Amino acid sequence: MTLFLIGLGLGDEKDITVKGLEVVKQADVVYLEHYTSILGVDKAKLEKFYGREVILADRELVEQHAEEQLVKLAKHKNVALLVVGDPFGATTHTDLVLRAKAAGAKVEIVHNASILNAVGVVGLELYKYGATTSIPFWEPGFEPETPYDAIKENKARGLHTLCLLDIKVKEPSKEDLQRGVSTPRPPRFMTVTQALESLLAIEQRRREGVLGPETLVVGVARIGQHDQRIIAGTIAELLKTDFSKPLHSLIVPGTLHHVEEEALEQWRRG
Amino acid sequence: MTLFLIGLGLGDEKDITVKGLEVVKQADVVYLEHYTSILGVDKAKLEKFYGREVILADRELVEQHAEEQLVKLAKHKNVALLVVGDPFGATTHTDLVLRAKAAGAKVEIVHNASILNAVGVVGLELYKYGATTSIPFWEPGFEPETPYDAIKENKARGLHTLCLLDIKVKEPSKEDLQRGVSTPRPPRFMTVTQALESLLAIEQRRREGVLGPETLVVGVARIGQHDQRIIAGTIAELLKTDFSKPLHSLIVPGTLHHVEEEALEQWRRG
Repeated sequence: MTLFLIGLGLGDEKDITVKGLEVVKQADVVYLEHYTSILGVDKAKLEKFYGREVILADRELVEQHAEEQLVKLAKHKNVALLVVGDPFGATTHTDLVLRAKAAGAKVEIVHNASILNAVGVVGLELYKYGATTSIPFWEPGFEPETPYDAIKENKARGLHTLCLLDIKVKEPSKEDLQRGVSTPRPPRFMTVTQALESLLAIEQRRREGVLGPETLVVGVARIGQHDQRIIAGTIAELLKTDFSKPLHSLIVPGTLHHVEEEALEQWRRG
Repeated sequence: MTLFLIGLGLGDEKDITVKGLEVVKQADVVYLEHYTSILGVDKAKLEKFYGREVILADRELVEQHAEEQLVKLAKHKNVALLVVGDPFGATTHTDLVLRAKAAGAKVEIVHNASILNAVGVVGLELYKYGATTSIPFWEPGFEPETPYDAIKENKARGLHTLCLLDIKVKEPSKEDLQRGVSTPRPPRFMTVTQALESLLAIEQRRREGVLGPETLVVGVARIGQHDQRIIAGTIAELLKTDFSKPLHSLIVPGTLHHVEEEALEQWRRG
């Protein structure tokens, strides 16, 4: 049988494609992956819209027990795994696809929008974005400077940088892991403010002039949802801006041409 | 009233989102933009699925007469402009959005998959792609080396390059433009083979060792459609491969990690 990976897009239950909805209605079992991103609606709303049960699949299921569960099921049943955005935003699913194929299951993909293309709404040209980077929550002993390097290298080529901000859903704390227990902490979503503070802290260490309080950046929240928010301003301005509910992302523009400048003017605060 | 920009995704009539379909059914007038990309189905099939008339909008309408037509209409009516992929793959629409807003129309976006995220199906991680480049058809006096530079710079950073291949739909020839006439030529879509020949010709000139017959590349055709094709191989191998119908795209991988290597193995020819 078949493992269907179905993108849900970014907004609400109606951002699934007509094709995706048909698969959901016919699949034997429907999982919702819910740790790499979040939709603007909850599981209950999806279940009502689909008219069927949806099982939450957390990181543990998808990454660690994938073979035993999803792949095994897909050998004999039609299994739909719903993914917020597009199914291929994360490596996880490439791995899952390879394992499912190796086990003899068919794999079909139903694509949808992801932050990587929907961010085009900001008005910076998508082909002028360099490599995407992720800004992680720092932990003691884990304060990576990779986002700073990505921005630096992109800027040197005149390219924009999309920074995806960390999400911790059902993540055990390091202390719990060390003690061998797994009480999950409440979900945490990095805000634009936290991301900017992290980048400024790296600038303080490195002092390579990649960014500072006067650097123009664009903060975005809930892209593709009805209450999405896009604000362009200096880092100093955005540090004081509340973007409200998750998910937030941050764009550090490279060289702007005039249509891009004009586009960003829409998002400046009066 | 409102100008709705609605992404159609990449495959067929059922790749529109549920939200997008609701808008199409209720809009006063529905245009289909048909010059930057193509869907796997024709206008008649869309019209049948939507149960309503769809007007083809060519480059001239969207870029040159946008203000007079789409924007003017959107002041008093609900206008849907359907775009293959996601509405923000091209600058055109940012410009259109700005003009519509300036004219007092509301603008709403319904996102969908585009080649920029759907290419994730190949198994190379999306965050490891550098800037996207376009490979144009050469004309006398127009033989740009920008794709070569993009690949070179991405490779230097270990990043993959997605090369979008030229499309000429209803494009007048240069000679016709000079003579002031506008008989459009038949549509042309660059093939993987043509793209590779173009890159090798630039390598011949530049001799910087960015690519050669032994370089591993990935050719893709009709991504997101039921008959999509993905083949990984050396440039020498892919020069002899027929990917059949458009659209084609080309990926030049950067540094591969092991899951990516394993993913590409799926697409090697036996």
